[in-house]
Amino acid sequence: MIHSNGFRPLERQECLRLLAKAPVGRVVYTRQALPAVLPVNFALDTDSAVVLCTSAASDLVRAVDGVVVAFEADDFDAGSRSGWSVVVTGRAAVVTDAAEHGRLLRTGPRSWMPMRDGVFIRIDAEMVTGRELTGAV
Amino acid sequence: MIHSNGFRPLERQECLRLLAKAPVGRVVYTRQALPAVLPVNFALDTDSAVVLCTSAASDLVRAVDGVVVAFEADDFDAGSRSGWSVVVTGRAAVVTDAAEHGRLLRTGPRSWMPMRDGVFIRIDAEMVTGRELTGAV
Repeated sequence: MIHSNGFRPLERQECLRLLAKAPVGRVVYTRQALPAVLPVNFALDTDSAVVLCTSAASDLVRAVDGVVVAFEADDFDAGSRSGWSVVVTGRAAVVTDAAEHGRLLRTGPRSWMPMRDGVFIRIDAEMVTGRELTGAV
Repeated sequence: MIHSNGFRPLERQECLRLLAKAPVGRVVYTRQALPAVLPVNFALDTDSAVVLCTSAASDLVRAVDGVVVAFEADDFDAGSRSGWSVVVTGRAAVVTDAAEHGRLLRTGPRSWMPMRDGVFIRIDAEMVTGRELTGAV
């Protein structure tokens, strides 16, 4: 189905397939009562949660641990005015379980920035929405 | 200056120069008490405000008119783990002045989606921050 305004909603499975190919997404949250956004590399966990690695001392950890956030990835082509975007909305939590942390050290994403105090944040894929812009204009 | 965690903060002018080249950015706001994000094409106005065009009947207009939002654009290369991101934070407002609307019809962005009830939203560039990731890992 293509909406009259030129985009097609994506099913959850299509969204997750697209997310799995995206190298970078953006954590959307609130910092000091203002909307905030931070691009990060990430991976999808086996239960479709978004996993990212950041410094334990980061502002991000303080702002999002235990809080519902959004996570967005997209890929657009300006020439054809087409592309897709996917948004995952769910609770973010720092991984504190040692076994889980160990598993993610082996299988999870590695931060693009060097850090000695890396922690993993998981964002549960409670709500997954997406849309495809088909270049109808 | 390169921070120990591998990124370099960008000056306002550098941020605006990069923003001017980006075809797509993301409006970051709150919708029904949840963090929300929507990718859109945009242009920079002469006073550096971010301008986008959307449907007057859209959820976006209802959610952001008169509210402080963030607007993010970035460009990363996964191969070299380098790139940049810029965030503009400021008050969003629908352009209601007829002369302003007319000026933006001539000079502003055109929506990538067909619409008959297009309105312009301006996001004042009150706070402009950015950073460059230099691929130090």
